[in-house]
Amino acid sequence: MALYVQKYGGTSVGSVERIEAVAEKVKGFREQGHDLVIVVSAMSGETNRLIQLAKSITDEPSTREMDVIMSTGEQVTIGLLAIALEKRGVPARSYTGAQVSIRTDSAYGKARIQHIDDQRIRQDLAEGRVVIVAGFQGVDDNGSITTLGRGGSDTTGVALAAALKADECQIYTDVDGVYTTDPRVVDTARRLDKITFEEMLEMASLGSKVLQIRSVEFAGKYNVPLRVLSSFADGPGTLITLEEEDTVEKPIISGIAFNRDEAKLTVLGVPDIPGVAYKILGPVSDANIEVDMIVQNVAADQTTDFTFTVHRNDFDKTKDILQRICAELGAREVSGNNKIAKVSIVGVGMRSHAGVASKMFAALAHEGINIQMISTSEIKVSVVIAEKYLELAVRALHSAFELDKVDTIAE
Amino acid sequence: MALYVQKYGGTSVGSVERIEAVAEKVKGFREQGHDLVIVVSAMSGETNRLIQLAKSITDEPSTREMDVIMSTGEQVTIGLLAIALEKRGVPARSYTGAQVSIRTDSAYGKARIQHIDDQRIRQDLAEGRVVIVAGFQGVDDNGSITTLGRGGSDTTGVALAAALKADECQIYTDVDGVYTTDPRVVDTARRLDKITFEEMLEMASLGSKVLQIRSVEFAGKYNVPLRVLSSFADGPGTLITLEEEDTVEKPIISGIAFNRDEAKLTVLGVPDIPGVAYKILGPVSDANIEVDMIVQNVAADQTTDFTFTVHRNDFDKTKDILQRICAELGAREVSGNNKIAKVSIVGVGMRSHAGVASKMFAALAHEGINIQMISTSEIKVSVVIAEKYLELAVRALHSAFELDKVDTIAE
Repeated sequence: MALYVQKYGGTSVGSVERIEAVAEKVKGFREQGHDLVIVVSAMSGETNRLIQLAKSITDEPSTREMDVIMSTGEQVTIGLLAIALEKRGVPARSYTGAQVSIRTDSAYGKARIQHIDDQRIRQDLAEGRVVIVAGFQGVDDNGSITTLGRGGSDTTGVALAAALKADECQIYTDVDGVYTTDPRVVDTARRLDKITFEEMLEMASLGSKVLQIRSVEFAGKYNVPLRVLSSFADGPGTLITLEEEDTVEKPIISGIAFNRDEAKLTVLGVPDIPGVAYKILGPVSDANIEVDMIVQNVAADQTTDFTFTVHRNDFDKTKDILQRICAELGAREVSGNNKIAKVSIVGVGMRSHAGVASKMFAALAHEGINIQMISTSEIKVSVVIAEKYLELAVRALHSAFELDKVDTIAE
Repeated sequence: MALYVQKYGGTSVGSVERIEAVAEKVKGFREQGHDLVIVVSAMSGETNRLIQLAKSITDEPSTREMDVIMSTGEQVTIGLLAIALEKRGVPARSYTGAQVSIRTDSAYGKARIQHIDDQRIRQDLAEGRVVIVAGFQGVDDNGSITTLGRGGSDTTGVALAAALKADECQIYTDVDGVYTTDPRVVDTARRLDKITFEEMLEMASLGSKVLQIRSVEFAGKYNVPLRVLSSFADGPGTLITLEEEDTVEKPIISGIAFNRDEAKLTVLGVPDIPGVAYKILGPVSDANIEVDMIVQNVAADQTTDFTFTVHRNDFDKTKDILQRICAELGAREVSGNNKIAKVSIVGVGMRSHAGVASKMFAALAHEGINIQMISTSEIKVSVVIAEKYLELAVRALHSAFELDKVDTIAE
């Protein structure tokens, strides 16, 4: 007998038939005696339909009014799911973000949750009802409707679980859990039973698009056990939780993330004087271009090569900016490469284990793969390589760290 | 410089193009210096789409959850209209029924407005904004979303006008006013400049479907000047208002209403004893059949013929009921006719003028039209005739009462 907050995304509620399937699933959990709070997204396609309506009036609609329009998508789903549950004899009641008092700031379109009043939900649960809450939305201090931005329904789920001190926040999606790496690249990729919040954050930010990053941060901050499961298949999914105490039995790394969305730019022969990094990255940031990895090496001749990566879509724009400021920097030249890929090993286990990075480099060298950039954090090592070697590198690392074996024990 | 509440119905906001046309219209009024509160319906077709979604789950969805779903239709329109106004440089802000605090009872699907908090709207108006309110919806004391039932947006408009003491509530629709009769039947039918609330109520209940009856009642009760105008053409429309003082200049009748939705049933040879009307109409009413006109005549032989009309769809069902109780009533037989029509003349002028009914009967007799039933109220005379004479009767009466002439003066 537990209290679960379950979130079902747009694909899981994409049609009346799928909403009925969710209702069946929820009924099953209810019959096991669990208390349930269900968070739903808009039916898939609906949010885009609403955006198109508004955009056909103007390219720059007021963000406040966009939120008024967009929030209707989830509102339709909550009503339909409540009806589908009641049809099955399961008492249910739906609430919009405003009704259940999910208070946010007034940053329309990307609002942040500040407070949730749990009284109404607790009362419904006590009276035996399943509570259904519209994801992705809230209300500001003026009573205006706000939305949390794309993927915000995950955040709604986690925030509700935190407010209600739920036993678990379960995110139902179209994958059955978090994998050691992408199964389309490595066929021995294995579903992880558990992963830590920190690892999940690194995996998510590196391109494993299972969960919205904000929801993982939120879950970590409030220590809400988070589980990713499939809406369409049975199975335990992956539990995302705090780091365990017994690190001895932790695998060194949990997974391999990668992406091919980035491009690399280098300013060669920059005078190695204070403030040069700012002089290079200032204009880039002013153009609203996000920078990911940054590497700087000092050469013998008092000059340095400054390399960083940006999203591949921003490659040409960034190159233009750098070429414009090259002369005033006193730099020799600008070079770039948009045929790169980033591969990362992630795992809290590497904190207590030396030699993880060198094992990674050895595995890549063994396959003849040249490393162009290296960046490390406490629980991750990332390298940039030529894009053509991406699959080869991921498979080599997956095998080198024995990720296809269950319960890999630290060496 | 006035305060107008303007209501635009589903056809007027049926597409993004039409919403932009409404925005143009509103901008024009704003430029004349008027304060404006705009009430909108769902885009035409949207409410039916939402009903279909819910009905595909169950034929009897919870009324509370239906209201959660249905209210999204208007919510999309208010956001789109606000965006269209802001695009034109007209400051605007949208509100759902709940946000602007349109308090209703909890009769989901047919809720009644109890209170409106006008503070927020007044503040926006004072700050120079056009206020846009979702029609058809409100919120009950528990914070649950309610809807007022079909046509409820008219009621929202009138209620807002009453709360704000607006100079006029203007209902924009696809007709350009209230006519002396249906222009498709009488080509000299004339748009009325003015009509009283009472006359409008009689016209509306008799089948002139320009305004929802409840909104007219509401306007009469709170003395809100109500104007019906066309969304698509310019023109003054028809003002619905309190009876004027100078009845000398009132035309005797204002219009001719008719409908062919009814059927007539007669129980012949009923013993003329107390309680017989109840014995006949009790079982009919128990079957949820609404009765309109009722006529009873006493015959010489201590029996009576009891005649009444019902909606044509209920004809067979009613006949079955009557045949079942015929014997226990001691009645001779049951007869019925569903090829009838009801024609009514309506006008407050007839209060102070004798001979209106006889003039009506003379005009019908002149055309050889037999009158099957007669029913009168203070400002209306209705007759039932054979359906085939309907158009002939309406034209004859329109001409007899000189409705095609402007400002007909009492004889």
